[in-house]
Amino acid sequence: MAHRIETDTMGEVRVPSDVYWGAQTERSRTNFPIGPSASMPLEIIYAFAQLKKAAALTNCRLGGLSREKTDLITRVCDEILAGKLDAQFPLVIWQTGSGTQTNMNLNEVIAWRAQELGGGRLGDKEKKLNPNDDVNQSQSSNDTFPTAMHIAAYTVTVETTLPGVQKLRDTLAQKSRDSMTIVKTGRTHFMDATPLTLGQELSAYVQQLDNGIRAIKHALVMVSELALGGTAVGTGLNAPEGYAEAVAKQIAELTGYPFVTAPNKFEALSAHDAMVELSGAFRRLAVSLMKIANDIRMLASGPRCGIGELCIPDNEPGSSIMPGKVNPTQCEALTMVAAQVMGNDVTVGIAGSNGQFQLNVFKPLIAANVLQSARLLGDACASFNDQCAVGISPNLPRIEHYLAQSLMLVTSLNPHIGYEKAAQIAKTAYKEGRSLKEVALALGYVSAEEFDLWVDPGKMVGKLSD
Amino acid sequence: MAHRIETDTMGEVRVPSDVYWGAQTERSRTNFPIGPSASMPLEIIYAFAQLKKAAALTNCRLGGLSREKTDLITRVCDEILAGKLDAQFPLVIWQTGSGTQTNMNLNEVIAWRAQELGGGRLGDKEKKLNPNDDVNQSQSSNDTFPTAMHIAAYTVTVETTLPGVQKLRDTLAQKSRDSMTIVKTGRTHFMDATPLTLGQELSAYVQQLDNGIRAIKHALVMVSELALGGTAVGTGLNAPEGYAEAVAKQIAELTGYPFVTAPNKFEALSAHDAMVELSGAFRRLAVSLMKIANDIRMLASGPRCGIGELCIPDNEPGSSIMPGKVNPTQCEALTMVAAQVMGNDVTVGIAGSNGQFQLNVFKPLIAANVLQSARLLGDACASFNDQCAVGISPNLPRIEHYLAQSLMLVTSLNPHIGYEKAAQIAKTAYKEGRSLKEVALALGYVSAEEFDLWVDPGKMVGKLSD
Amino acid sequence: MAHRIETDTMGEVRVPSDVYWGAQTERSRTNFPIGPSASMPLEIIYAFAQLKKAAALTNCRLGGLSREKTDLITRVCDEILAGKLDAQFPLVIWQTGSGTQTNMNLNEVIAWRAQELGGGRLGDKEKKLNPNDDVNQSQSSNDTFPTAMHIAAYTVTVETTLPGVQKLRDTLAQKSRDSMTIVKTGRTHFMDATPLTLGQELSAYVQQLDNGIRAIKHALVMVSELALGGTAVGTGLNAPEGYAEAVAKQIAELTGYPFVTAPNKFEALSAHDAMVELSGAFRRLAVSLMKIANDIRMLASGPRCGIGELCIPDNEPGSSIMPGKVNPTQCEALTMVAAQVMGNDVTVGIAGSNGQFQLNVFKPLIAANVLQSARLLGDACASFNDQCAVGISPNLPRIEHYLAQSLMLVTSLNPHIGYEKAAQIAKTAYKEGRSLKEVALALGYVSAEEFDLWVDPGKMVGKLSD
Amino acid sequence: MAHRIETDTMGEVRVPSDVYWGAQTERSRTNFPIGPSASMPLEIIYAFAQLKKAAALTNCRLGGLSREKTDLITRVCDEILAGKLDAQFPLVIWQTGSGTQTNMNLNEVIAWRAQELGGGRLGDKEKKLNPNDDVNQSQSSNDTFPTAMHIAAYTVTVETTLPGVQKLRDTLAQKSRDSMTIVKTGRTHFMDATPLTLGQELSAYVQQLDNGIRAIKHALVMVSELALGGTAVGTGLNAPEGYAEAVAKQIAELTGYPFVTAPNKFEALSAHDAMVELSGAFRRLAVSLMKIANDIRMLASGPRCGIGELCIPDNEPGSSIMPGKVNPTQCEALTMVAAQVMGNDVTVGIAGSNGQFQLNVFKPLIAANVLQSARLLGDACASFNDQCAVGISPNLPRIEHYLAQSLMLVTSLNPHIGYEKAAQIAKTAYKEGRSLKEVALALGYVSAEEFDLWVDPGKMVGKLSD
Repeated sequence: MAHRIETDTMGEVRVPSDVYWGAQTERSRTNFPIGPSASMPLEIIYAFAQLKKAAALTNCRLGGLSREKTDLITRVCDEILAGKLDAQFPLVIWQTGSGTQTNMNLNEVIAWRAQELGGGRLGDKEKKLNPNDDVNQSQSSNDTFPTAMHIAAYTVTVETTLPGVQKLRDTLAQKSRDSMTIVKTGRTHFMDATPLTLGQELSAYVQQLDNGIRAIKHALVMVSELALGGTAVGTGLNAPEGYAEAVAKQIAELTGYPFVTAPNKFEALSAHDAMVELSGAFRRLAVSLMKIANDIRMLASGPRCGIGELCIPDNEPGSSIMPGKVNPTQCEALTMVAAQVMGNDVTVGIAGSNGQFQLNVFKPLIAANVLQSARLLGDACASFNDQCAVGISPNLPRIEHYLAQSLMLVTSLNPHIGYEKAAQIAKTAYKEGRSLKEVALALGYVSAEEFDLWVDPGKMVGKLSD
Repeated sequence: MAHRIETDTMGEVRVPSDVYWGAQTERSRTNFPIGPSASMPLEIIYAFAQLKKAAALTNCRLGGLSREKTDLITRVCDEILAGKLDAQFPLVIWQTGSGTQTNMNLNEVIAWRAQELGGGRLGDKEKKLNPNDDVNQSQSSNDTFPTAMHIAAYTVTVETTLPGVQKLRDTLAQKSRDSMTIVKTGRTHFMDATPLTLGQELSAYVQQLDNGIRAIKHALVMVSELALGGTAVGTGLNAPEGYAEAVAKQIAELTGYPFVTAPNKFEALSAHDAMVELSGAFRRLAVSLMKIANDIRMLASGPRCGIGELCIPDNEPGSSIMPGKVNPTQCEALTMVAAQVMGNDVTVGIAGSNGQFQLNVFKPLIAANVLQSARLLGDACASFNDQCAVGISPNLPRIEHYLAQSLMLVTSLNPHIGYEKAAQIAKTAYKEGRSLKEVALALGYVSAEEFDLWVDPGKMVGKLSD
Repeated sequence: MAHRIETDTMGEVRVPSDVYWGAQTERSRTNFPIGPSASMPLEIIYAFAQLKKAAALTNCRLGGLSREKTDLITRVCDEILAGKLDAQFPLVIWQTGSGTQTNMNLNEVIAWRAQELGGGRLGDKEKKLNPNDDVNQSQSSNDTFPTAMHIAAYTVTVETTLPGVQKLRDTLAQKSRDSMTIVKTGRTHFMDATPLTLGQELSAYVQQLDNGIRAIKHALVMVSELALGGTAVGTGLNAPEGYAEAVAKQIAELTGYPFVTAPNKFEALSAHDAMVELSGAFRRLAVSLMKIANDIRMLASGPRCGIGELCIPDNEPGSSIMPGKVNPTQCEALTMVAAQVMGNDVTVGIAGSNGQFQLNVFKPLIAANVLQSARLLGDACASFNDQCAVGISPNLPRIEHYLAQSLMLVTSLNPHIGYEKAAQIAKTAYKEGRSLKEVALALGYVSAEEFDLWVDPGKMVGKLSD
Repeated sequence: MAHRIETDTMGEVRVPSDVYWGAQTERSRTNFPIGPSASMPLEIIYAFAQLKKAAALTNCRLGGLSREKTDLITRVCDEILAGKLDAQFPLVIWQTGSGTQTNMNLNEVIAWRAQELGGGRLGDKEKKLNPNDDVNQSQSSNDTFPTAMHIAAYTVTVETTLPGVQKLRDTLAQKSRDSMTIVKTGRTHFMDATPLTLGQELSAYVQQLDNGIRAIKHALVMVSELALGGTAVGTGLNAPEGYAEAVAKQIAELTGYPFVTAPNKFEALSAHDAMVELSGAFRRLAVSLMKIANDIRMLASGPRCGIGELCIPDNEPGSSIMPGKVNPTQCEALTMVAAQVMGNDVTVGIAGSNGQFQLNVFKPLIAANVLQSARLLGDACASFNDQCAVGISPNLPRIEHYLAQSLMLVTSLNPHIGYEKAAQIAKTAYKEGRSLKEVALALGYVSAEEFDLWVDPGKMVGKLSD
């Protein structure tokens, strides 16, 4: 393969002749052959492009960068954001923990691509842009990488996670309203319990998702705070006065999201507790989704030897050996995602706890895990919604069959005959395989009229919300 | 040991003759010989006492319970809250996952103790209070236990966790202000970096704790929502109209905390995501504390072969074999607590994800872990504050020694001579063991006056907050 | 309260006049008011007593300690092991991370109690034993605490964990054999699947437990290696030649367990990977138990609206509001324990990863979590066995009812008519609510004789193990 | 894009006209738009290719499959294993939890590619191989996917993980031997402690890695057990007598690894505890690596304001803003990997605990996480070895500087003057900034000759292993 020679402060490096990256990217590529290449999430690359563009515009406005250089940087950033340069970012997550090498990957690619856009050629001696002094002006990896993390995490959360959850939430809310009067047996301890309506059962899931959305939105407030302007250790060395505020405002304009400068840059470089908090909010949602998907899986179990109160869509043949089998596959995908998010959260917590002095050097790891959780949750909720939740329907005969049999209807006799006599009725009915009414009458605790009046499942479900 | 016979719907049980508990408590005591006895946290017992008192008062007001019975219940609850009946709650965490047996433990103890208060005797045939029909009126384990969890978690968080963290936060803020002008070397990647002030370094910790407090307070909002009124499955069966709102208000009055009724009781029984969220907020704080305590431990390392920029109090002889050794023991206790909280959080997440249908049956586990985390965090922060943080002082000679030597001061030359020449100066100085100034002059990149003007650590730390 | 004055290298400390502990214990008690007092597990105290006794005997044999002093130490250790001095160990887990203070607690208590046994009195000026020079001779906290951790963990695992698991394993094996010919429907994806026997179903649990036992036993091999003899940093400074081997042998004799000296003391002080590994083996078992208990809970669900293929013992009234309700409470306790163990394992891993240089200072935390997991697993398995597993019985009518209905019996037609035609039969039968045989005949794919010959559940379960 | 119509038991599906996959793969591709496409690890695909080849050969031998069909299957499998068909496996991890769709992806691709190899064309009506009846003969997803998991996990562990760890272990062992006589200060609690040699310090890491290798190898024993032959639920329905043993032997021959048939197929389908155990062994290793990399990072810290006892290679410019900065980037990559593995382990544990009845439906998730951990650990250890460990060298002046200053050398006076006097010397020296010898003489506790004889660091490090 053809090469050209690139140079950095450590000396010369051979780089494939047709790539825009330079010496430091190549060093990283060589020094970290860990896992598949290019594992650094593209969301981070795109966030960096927003950041580099905003930094250039701000430097230009504050006088540190010429209009011409600013335009070049801006144009390359727009190309990156359009996905045209994806192949120029070959680095992995498992590099330096500050993400310096990815920052330099951006700086180098922007500089060389700008060379071309400005009429020059790859490998020119005379460079239109210096990767460090121009593209990285007023910046350090230590403040750019966390800024890119926040931009990326905020964006994916707002554009993928929350819409996916909201979609599912709205479907479940509609299903809940649609089935608000379908009375069915309740189950506690996985055992028969007093009745509720299917709509009530589903309303719990809606509440869980509403709460999850609320928690994520609250965590986003901190993620909207950007480290940029802190430079190397948080003091803002080599960045002009007012830079931090101005560049955050610029990023907010470019992205349309309410980013602001972080109140304390020392914290913003040395700790990523905001990302830990966001990951924790995702974990909360994952816990809810595990419950919801499990319930639906079990309510739809069967078709003949399970609970079977719900019907869910048949999407694929379920078995390579058992003909006609259909499985709750969307529940399975969703619960696998939930388990992944729960583990990612541990990774993020451990990484967050291991910062030292002025820097946390688990940045790429934290970014990758939070972004994976964000994307998987959003995608999986949308998939679960589209391929499962929208098609959920009650299996009314089964629901009625169970309800009629449930011994826990006896609970409504408590206020009339007391807990102990009610227990005697239920136990006798169970032991003798008889109905509650038969036994209640045989024991002489109630009349037939009383029984019918008091033991009415439809009256046992409380006030129904609309 | 003397016994008396107690009876429940399953039959007779022998119970020690001098205890207030009854058949169901005794069954649980016998059936779950798992771990040390009485492991159910007392905070849960006390929260139950508040709840039972509030329930009785509300039942009385709504007409379901006589004034006399209400008074008896109230008096026993007050005794429990005064710590007089602690020995009457022998059950373990590892019982039924609904906490039914602890709810019955309360019901039984209240009923028998009321018997005595009302002039009767333990074992009387004629009972003044029925544990189920009176003490548990309008309630189910399924709504009382989560209510007690929330009351207990809210209370410990507000009374122990937050004050402990706040105390530490305030001390660190004072230390930060006190040392805001002490310039020292920064460290990133555990390597020498550009300078900052000690006050700035400490301000990061203050920001971390402020953010942690904010996260915990936000999580408390959901914990202030109470399940009570949902009874068995969330429908409120056997509870009177308006009961849920009234009893929450009563609990708020008794405790002085802003408890309200949960908007969806189905969610409040079947999911404990609010507790998961609170645990996640504790985890966030634990992550911060791990970083802070680690930094302080390392900054205080030595006395002669470590970093040694900080002095911390000598509290105990540090070694049974090495004479004169002193160790950062408060850092160690705090980091151990942090690791415990991080693991507890995983337990709580797993438990929270495993609810089924109308009930999550990991309630005692969730309660115990959240309460342990809450207490340990509060206690450990207070201990760390009192025995360590208040006594932190800078080791000025060591701080100045490092600062004078740091090669990273060269960074302030970037805007004047460019990154590459600056790098050459630093590398040469390192290789040849010389000072930056010597090398900079030798290389002819700056004059002595320029060097002194530009490389001034005091000017490299940015604007100092007060 | 009356006090006496104790002295250590830091000066004077007031100590309650009637306790055996001295200055350093008291300092720790005062300096670490974190969580409930005396939380340091008694298993650690007892293991220390074994260790101190063994150390004294070895020191005596190697000439460093007089016979008289050795006898005194031995006698106090025997009292500790008899549980007579439990109240003398008031320290908490959340102390110095080396456990130095607990080591000194032992040294101090042994010295003062020996004073009494030797005819002296608490507070005497002239001491028969010096806590450091005599009781701690040839030792450091850094090698004694990990040694006590290993002794305690090994002992609890062998005496509580493994017997509990084995008991449950044996019961399930017996149940498996007893039901080896009971054919029932299988379930995959929580959906009906081809049949197996109940004995086969249960045999999976037996295999899981066998594998778990195997993993724990393998982890114990490393736990049997003792750090003692490494003293302060692993070099064995101040311990006589041959001490490490001799004292390990002595401990093996005293305990009856195959303890040996660790091959590398530097590793044994600075890392507790052996404990991490043991915790991981417990986690493996917890994962198995979660599956087993969940299955049994679901197989026993109902009584009328669940799966209901198994009957489990009714141990307690299951509800404070629903009369006659019985719940799978032992499953609940066991799954709560499993979740606790899974979280403890994360704590232990985090703690294990945070050692620095020659010492890991999360020792008490690691010990406490591993010991809790060990005890809970053993206790919970025994409880689950005694109160649940031994009473499991098949609900034959329900099992037969499901089996007869299952559409997945069609799978045995694959080799005869191919997967696609078999699928058509199953789908048609499901859609039309008919039996497989009816549909198979109607479609003309098989004759009645062929159907009866081929679709025979009893032939679909393979070779039965005895 | 051009399409062709494929059919399965659910009906027709449009599939891109130029791909080998069929209806079921396409359904999965459409139904699970979750995360990046083709996330199912290629290691699983290749393991499936080994499996399908072995199954065909075994079916042929046992009479169920013609030689011609067998040859076709074998040839396609060889193409897959040569990496020629990678693009034909577009499915994601987040599909059905049994991995059925990936099994069918293999079945379909093999069938259509065989069509071409046999002279037919994509889309032919007359098919040479039926995906279910031929390619999947004697198999189910439920036994093939776990078999592929085990083959893949075993292979990656043996070919990547263990060699990487061993390489690092051997380098550290050599470094340990090379520096066995370099005496340096020890550090406990991150505070100065008694001396040891650098070789001793490094030997702890070697022991940790040896133990980690041992744990992984032990876990592999269970991973070598294969589920194949259990078919749908473990009974082996539709597989011929002796199939399980024969196919395992065939796989062992093809792979060269000691695979055997699992002793209990019910366990092998419904639980993946063997994978949980392997993940746990990886976690153990990760914990060790976190400690080792952290130590090396800290020992190499500086260059002027840190510990600086070790020199590590300078691989890349360390900062985009701080000229001349070099960072311990390999330590950072390794610790990030360690944190990922620790979180993956939690995911695997949660997934493993959530099996139900005859199947665990978290299979793709478990496979993906275990394989990622295996690969990352191996790659990161090799990278750390090659780019860091091999270049570690002692900074002798710094080591000697610290050693000379350490107050903990006083410990060797204990046996001569007692712990308390020794403590007095150390404390006085510290307070007054003097040397131990000066103070010891001034206090009159030893003579100069005694001091020099007793306080000799070289004699304080015990017996040196070679």
